[in-house]
Amino acid sequence: MNTTKRPTVAALEAILGEPTPVLDHGFVRVIDYMGDDAAIVQAARVSYGSGTKSVREDEALIRYLMRHRHTTPFEMCEIKLHVKLPIFVARQWIRHRMASVNEQSARYSILDNEFYIPAPEHLAAQATSNRQGRGDVLEGDEAAIVMAALELNASTNYRIYQWMLNEGGDWVEHDPSRKGVARELARMNLTLNTYTQWYWKTDLHNLFNFLALRADSHAQYEIRAYADVILGITEAWVPMACQAFRDYRLGAVTLSAQMLDVVRRLLAGEQAVIPPPGLTPREWVEMWDVLELPTVAEEGVR
Amino acid sequence: MNTTKRPTVAALEAILGEPTPVLDHGFVRVIDYMGDDAAIVQAARVSYGSGTKSVREDEALIRYLMRHRHTTPFEMCEIKLHVKLPIFVARQWIRHRMASVNEQSARYSILDNEFYIPAPEHLAAQATSNRQGRGDVLEGDEAAIVMAALELNASTNYRIYQWMLNEGGDWVEHDPSRKGVARELARMNLTLNTYTQWYWKTDLHNLFNFLALRADSHAQYEIRAYADVILGITEAWVPMACQAFRDYRLGAVTLSAQMLDVVRRLLAGEQAVIPPPGLTPREWVEMWDVLELPTVAEEGVR
Amino acid sequence: MNTTKRPTVAALEAILGEPTPVLDHGFVRVIDYMGDDAAIVQAARVSYGSGTKSVREDEALIRYLMRHRHTTPFEMCEIKLHVKLPIFVARQWIRHRMASVNEQSARYSILDNEFYIPAPEHLAAQATSNRQGRGDVLEGDEAAIVMAALELNASTNYRIYQWMLNEGGDWVEHDPSRKGVARELARMNLTLNTYTQWYWKTDLHNLFNFLALRADSHAQYEIRAYADVILGITEAWVPMACQAFRDYRLGAVTLSAQMLDVVRRLLAGEQAVIPPPGLTPREWVEMWDVLELPTVAEEGVR
Amino acid sequence: MNTTKRPTVAALEAILGEPTPVLDHGFVRVIDYMGDDAAIVQAARVSYGSGTKSVREDEALIRYLMRHRHTTPFEMCEIKLHVKLPIFVARQWIRHRMASVNEQSARYSILDNEFYIPAPEHLAAQATSNRQGRGDVLEGDEAAIVMAALELNASTNYRIYQWMLNEGGDWVEHDPSRKGVARELARMNLTLNTYTQWYWKTDLHNLFNFLALRADSHAQYEIRAYADVILGITEAWVPMACQAFRDYRLGAVTLSAQMLDVVRRLLAGEQAVIPPPGLTPREWVEMWDVLELPTVAEEGVR
Repeated sequence: MNTTKRPTVAALEAILGEPTPVLDHGFVRVIDYMGDDAAIVQAARVSYGSGTKSVREDEALIRYLMRHRHTTPFEMCEIKLHVKLPIFVARQWIRHRMASVNEQSARYSILDNEFYIPAPEHLAAQATSNRQGRGDVLEGDEAAIVMAALELNASTNYRIYQWMLNEGGDWVEHDPSRKGVARELARMNLTLNTYTQWYWKTDLHNLFNFLALRADSHAQYEIRAYADVILGITEAWVPMACQAFRDYRLGAVTLSAQMLDVVRRLLAGEQAVIPPPGLTPREWVEMWDVLELPTVAEEGVR
Repeated sequence: MNTTKRPTVAALEAILGEPTPVLDHGFVRVIDYMGDDAAIVQAARVSYGSGTKSVREDEALIRYLMRHRHTTPFEMCEIKLHVKLPIFVARQWIRHRMASVNEQSARYSILDNEFYIPAPEHLAAQATSNRQGRGDVLEGDEAAIVMAALELNASTNYRIYQWMLNEGGDWVEHDPSRKGVARELARMNLTLNTYTQWYWKTDLHNLFNFLALRADSHAQYEIRAYADVILGITEAWVPMACQAFRDYRLGAVTLSAQMLDVVRRLLAGEQAVIPPPGLTPREWVEMWDVLELPTVAEEGVR
Repeated sequence: MNTTKRPTVAALEAILGEPTPVLDHGFVRVIDYMGDDAAIVQAARVSYGSGTKSVREDEALIRYLMRHRHTTPFEMCEIKLHVKLPIFVARQWIRHRMASVNEQSARYSILDNEFYIPAPEHLAAQATSNRQGRGDVLEGDEAAIVMAALELNASTNYRIYQWMLNEGGDWVEHDPSRKGVARELARMNLTLNTYTQWYWKTDLHNLFNFLALRADSHAQYEIRAYADVILGITEAWVPMACQAFRDYRLGAVTLSAQMLDVVRRLLAGEQAVIPPPGLTPREWVEMWDVLELPTVAEEGVR
Repeated sequence: MNTTKRPTVAALEAILGEPTPVLDHGFVRVIDYMGDDAAIVQAARVSYGSGTKSVREDEALIRYLMRHRHTTPFEMCEIKLHVKLPIFVARQWIRHRMASVNEQSARYSILDNEFYIPAPEHLAAQATSNRQGRGDVLEGDEAAIVMAALELNASTNYRIYQWMLNEGGDWVEHDPSRKGVARELARMNLTLNTYTQWYWKTDLHNLFNFLALRADSHAQYEIRAYADVILGITEAWVPMACQAFRDYRLGAVTLSAQMLDVVRRLLAGEQAVIPPPGLTPREWVEMWDVLELPTVAEEGVR
């Protein structure tokens, strides 16, 4: 333990360095952090300078900033995570460009013999309602064969990888008569569920952008599993900001100009509202669901 | 053909939309561009405003900007490429964050049955001089077996991928008794040499950063093959800026403060220069090579 | 006029290079652009790859992308503007970091004798409702004195600037007995309403972020004047994307989780809804206004 | 004082929160930081993974990373500063886009009556050697008049600003018969040497980019004064990385391909080297100075 004049967050210190398991072999581990809820307030208040007389409550200010998308004060907090994750998840994750990353290099080092196999309850069919996402869980023989195939393909490919490298391993001896393949080449034989790891550092504003997309129900389950863990970490770290994020972003809903018009008319007592020109049937249905309106198709309301 | 008031570059128009092959199944194709050498000059000159009287030659100005790392005028040119590339190359490429990317989604669509197999002359052993990179080319049986294994693993995994999807394909029929696996899951069975494709857009400054790293001899051959093609495209597009880039960045050498001291003393006629404290033996050797100095180990110079 | 294989937009070509006046001496001028509505669609479609069978209408796709904040395809369009603007506006504008800028340098060149003086109808008092923004327009003597003072201070400071520079000018001769002050120093005497100019380039996604903030009614009038002109340019350039932006962002409203709950209950017929714990009185009022609900304070509804 | 599991840096803790004066009224103050030299090493080592056997010395690794521009591990350290600075300096500074900023808002608050007046030894004439930068220091009457004029203009403009605001102040009473001008408007009357302040947060990689440009002798003195203080802070924070930065960037020199050719030939003993085609006369002189070669114009060497 060190002493510091910097702000510290007891709830985050409690889990600092401790890996939280995700999926079958992955984890998320907080390495370092900077700032807390008060740091957001502190940065926001520099804007008000000597002209500010009244002291607003910290929480109210944070909620105000979140509600009105005054995002820069949230950038004043920073977190660094150590993450172990399948490569196909890493490929989605890396699209968040406003972050710093140091990933294990398969040019320098040999990847571990670990790969992701979905738990039975996550092995699902293609969704029929949209071209993205999953539908029913597979069952019976099909599920068993798929699981076995994933396992077999990944482990076979890893073994061939080890053989190519010719640096020995759990099942193959180094063969001095062979040169072995360069690591940067041999890795191409591995499957996309092979685990990699990285240090990932971002600020709280960009972390919220990540969570808004990846803790969303439309995100692929595997990356959502990481986002859910990170959301929990964020809650321990900056509880006020995290609650504001839940209220004003995660749980919020945006009504388009046309939707807003419909809602106003419904609230004003109009009985049968016809979809306005700007609304597609799909949006119409989405809006109906969001507002939890009764389906009264026969009456022409919907 | 359209007409436009915008600047156009004949040499780039000539190849616009035409794919240039890279590796065994990849390509680079220019989709669109904005600006030319004159656009760099135009942006630089806004800085000089009405106070500027003398007209500098465009090329001299571009070279001056490159030499002194005045990078913002180069950001005024933009290029958009369509690239087909193996996933392990895409994973290196995507680390260049200052770019816009739209990649083929394996959640939405089914990837093609195409994967990269190195040509015999690029199938090499691990380098012994450094932990990164390649050494001798593999030969004989070892080469043959590696090639066959890469081919077999990738194609087997692809077939299983098709079977899992249960959407039919060249070797397997759709089986109505099976649900099929969601695309976002089935893809994890594919190998890292599977081809993907994307639209990639960046500005000239960031393109030069990309090329400085990826057209360098330390870059992995496979991404260098793309960088070399893009360097050729850049030459057609902005010939003056590209030449300045070659002279002041690609072909340039940075001497550290300690190296500079050694060079000054050698140029002043000192015979035997001892490595100064700040230089590691490795740097000493690197410097000797860069300056093409004779090795006179026995005389204690090196 | 040049010929090109690139997509062109007739409505934008028509105004290319032509300055549109803004404020008293400013302007916005389109220098170059890349892409159009179809380029957004093209980039989005690369995601669907060979798995896509049905062809969606372009406009529906663009609206879908905007609605669901699939922002990357909008990054595929790029625009470059030449803008002349007061320095205090430039200081707000530059906070949009995802852009490339080349500004006239007051280290190299001498700034012009031009400064912004508000038109009488924009000379307003501090707002009383919030600490930011404007209230009533000034009138009579106060207005006249303020206008005269702004004019006098800016022009006096400019004259002293010219005198310091000792490079001659409209009212002062070069004095060979004086050395003159360096430009980089003398400029500090100028007022914040002095005009500067720059080339500013950004992509459509970041342009929309700029417009969402700066074409908003809470933005300072002076920067909003520029945003409004640029919104018009955007409409000429990418009419479909711009309409989607108006419907789903500019004219849209975000309901927090708590607000959504209230709206659902009102729509379900609850008469008197009490503000839930998560809603501040301020939010309660904001929501009431947004939904255009009647104020029935005495009945306890509001 | 708090306790933390995070790495701490005693030399930086010692000055945390303490303002270091810069210019006449400015300061730099460290608010928070994340990481240390060891954090750079830690992030770099994740790349080597389980394949790494030998333990390199931390310092050698940091120097290697700096020398070869492996910049991402430096992004893993973060620092947050509170800075008070003249507006014309802030305008240069803000061009470094890879940073988070919260600046005092002159829309919300009233700026203080503080402005920068150069010390006599920094009041210089325009440089004659280049169009940018300063030459001789002003003396005698000219210096006295310039100083007085800067002082007078800034303070007069500030007084009018106070009068316009009509919120009272050190020399003017609130006048209830006037409405007063909105803060966002009145500020335009202030001069560019008025002080502002901000919280500025960036990572170590981008801090080095800032320092490479702003601690350079070509930077304007006023921003260099800040850069020099921040360089000292950086030294206290990450001494190894800072020394590597001094050796490989600040004190280093880049030789173009053509310069390298000349140096090689000089080192090989060629007596009279003629400037090669790719070198302008200006570069030729620059190179000669950098290498501290004797000027032997008459002999045709130079």
